Amino acid sequence: MTTIPIISLDAIQNSMTRTDILHAVKGALIAHSDGKVISPPPGQLLFDNPKGDCHIKYGYLQGGDTYVVKVASGFYDNPKQGLPVNNGIMMVFSAQTGAPVCILDDRGWLTNVRTAAAGALAAQAGAPAQIRKLGIIGAGEQAELQALWSCELLNINTVDVFARSPSRVKAYAKRMKEHGIDVTISPNIPTLLQKCNLVITTTPANSALIQANDVQSGTHIVAIGADSPGKQELDAALFQRAAVIMVDDHEQCVHHGDYGYAVRAGLVPENSDTPLGAVLAGAKPGRLSDQDITITDLTGIAAEDLAVAGLAWNRCT
Amino acid sequence: MTTIPIISLDAIQNSMTRTDILHAVKGALIAHSDGKVISPPPGQLLFDNPKGDCHIKYGYLQGGDTYVVKVASGFYDNPKQGLPVNNGIMMVFSAQTGAPVCILDDRGWLTNVRTAAAGALAAQAGAPAQIRKLGIIGAGEQAELQALWSCELLNINTVDVFARSPSRVKAYAKRMKEHGIDVTISPNIPTLLQKCNLVITTTPANSALIQANDVQSGTHIVAIGADSPGKQELDAALFQRAAVIMVDDHEQCVHHGDYGYAVRAGLVPENSDTPLGAVLAGAKPGRLSDQDITITDLTGIAAEDLAVAGLAWNRCT
Repeated sequence: MTTIPIISLDAIQNSMTRTDILHAVKGALIAHSDGKVISPPPGQLLFDNPKGDCHIKYGYLQGGDTYVVKVASGFYDNPKQGLPVNNGIMMVFSAQTGAPVCILDDRGWLTNVRTAAAGALAAQAGAPAQIRKLGIIGAGEQAELQALWSCELLNINTVDVFARSPSRVKAYAKRMKEHGIDVTISPNIPTLLQKCNLVITTTPANSALIQANDVQSGTHIVAIGADSPGKQELDAALFQRAAVIMVDDHEQCVHHGDYGYAVRAGLVPENSDTPLGAVLAGAKPGRLSDQDITITDLTGIAAEDLAVAGLAWNRCT
Repeated sequence: MTTIPIISLDAIQNSMTRTDILHAVKGALIAHSDGKVISPPPGQLLFDNPKGDCHIKYGYLQGGDTYVVKVASGFYDNPKQGLPVNNGIMMVFSAQTGAPVCILDDRGWLTNVRTAAAGALAAQAGAPAQIRKLGIIGAGEQAELQALWSCELLNINTVDVFARSPSRVKAYAKRMKEHGIDVTISPNIPTLLQKCNLVITTTPANSALIQANDVQSGTHIVAIGADSPGKQELDAALFQRAAVIMVDDHEQCVHHGDYGYAVRAGLVPENSDTPLGAVLAGAKPGRLSDQDITITDLTGIAAEDLAVAGLAWNRCT
């Protein structure tokens, strides 16, 4: 019996460009909102000592030849050992026989880039006509990717950043400058929200970082961090001020996204959201006026994993 | 970056004996009933064309160094192409960093043998003092394993079998004889239930195969097939006649085991069951008298996967 082909991170990275990934993830978000993706609620494992979480996402495109199972972890003490927070692998199986087709030994890279792509597409979907400044809250790996991908997609080259650790913010600014992006640093979130009308949050916070009254009209906020029950980045009351609430997946965002806090508190009806895929397809508006506050809540969906796994599999085998 | 070690089926099979597996699975069932295993509800993907299902089980032992994610599929048209119904792989990850530790390319073999071990242990747990004859309903791969493992554990060497397809039953009897086990064939299930007071069902049936009134007093039945919503092997009314109802996992058996049909129909209270692990540990009886009808409902639990994956990982690396 032959062993399952295992595709290395190098091979995966060399097989696709940022444009390829944006295209694949956009298609995935649209297919998901069109109901063409079979993806049951993801599985989750939580760890206390050390603190970590693991998400297991799986699904298939209706009529597709394969299905994908993805394991992605975040262990938040890893940087103390010089290791990245995120890790994981994806597996592709035949939807005809169940046989494993290949293992994508991507160590979480595909998850990182599909999240970066979704964040950039979400930023674009609700961005004001004039972007004063792009603000990034968080200074981790995903905060870096969000800035890089959004700057490229939106054709901007400067970001403002806030994170709790001054040393991590400095290191972040240095890394971004190496990528050719200028960084200004805000001492706190209200200051960042004064400067920026497009803001991406990507932290493991467990309570609201952005207070409703600190957000100026005309701002679009993309919330990426809350991907498990108990995580939260946005004040639930901010959703009451939002003219458009976009979600990658209704059920997931109600269950464990920032949007869910607003729904459960009765601040907005449960049907207040619009699928991000419908906005990306041009079927729904991402913003109605320059004065709108708009929000995209992202929890990460299996459809994105299917799309990038399919891309890697097609290109590498 | 080094690639994840991938352990072949051959290496896995050569690393463990039937006794090792029985020991590991018994420990897993006991640990699970003691609440020492973290294993959220499994994920499931269903396929229509061709008909198939995929279960994703995952979890870890409290305080353990690793966690395990298992993908196991059943595609029921595979035999038409000369392929086994079941397939799958297991993955071991560090519970300290999330890093993948190894991939067990077992093609579903570990799932098959841990299911065989659980079935044999379940058969032993409720077996009458005098086993008149062991009956097997089904003629697939798992029906073969159940007979082999139970015969060895219970020190018997003859089984009676029923399955719908006469040609498959004949092939089954031939294979079993090659293993040194004599087979008699029943033309229907009531006949088998006349001959046998220990019966294992292992079919993909979607409605009751065993009718409550056909079961004689003193019989122990192990139901293995119903591992997804919609599958069923036992008449719900049989649970009313049972003196002891053992389950591998309460939630799973209520949700998608045979036991759930009896609970949902209001035929037995939801708390009528005993953990199989408690019986295996000697903390609860598996039967109270020679006249009892007893049932073990098995749905397959992540704890079993953890146990056999840990065994393979320890022995092969």
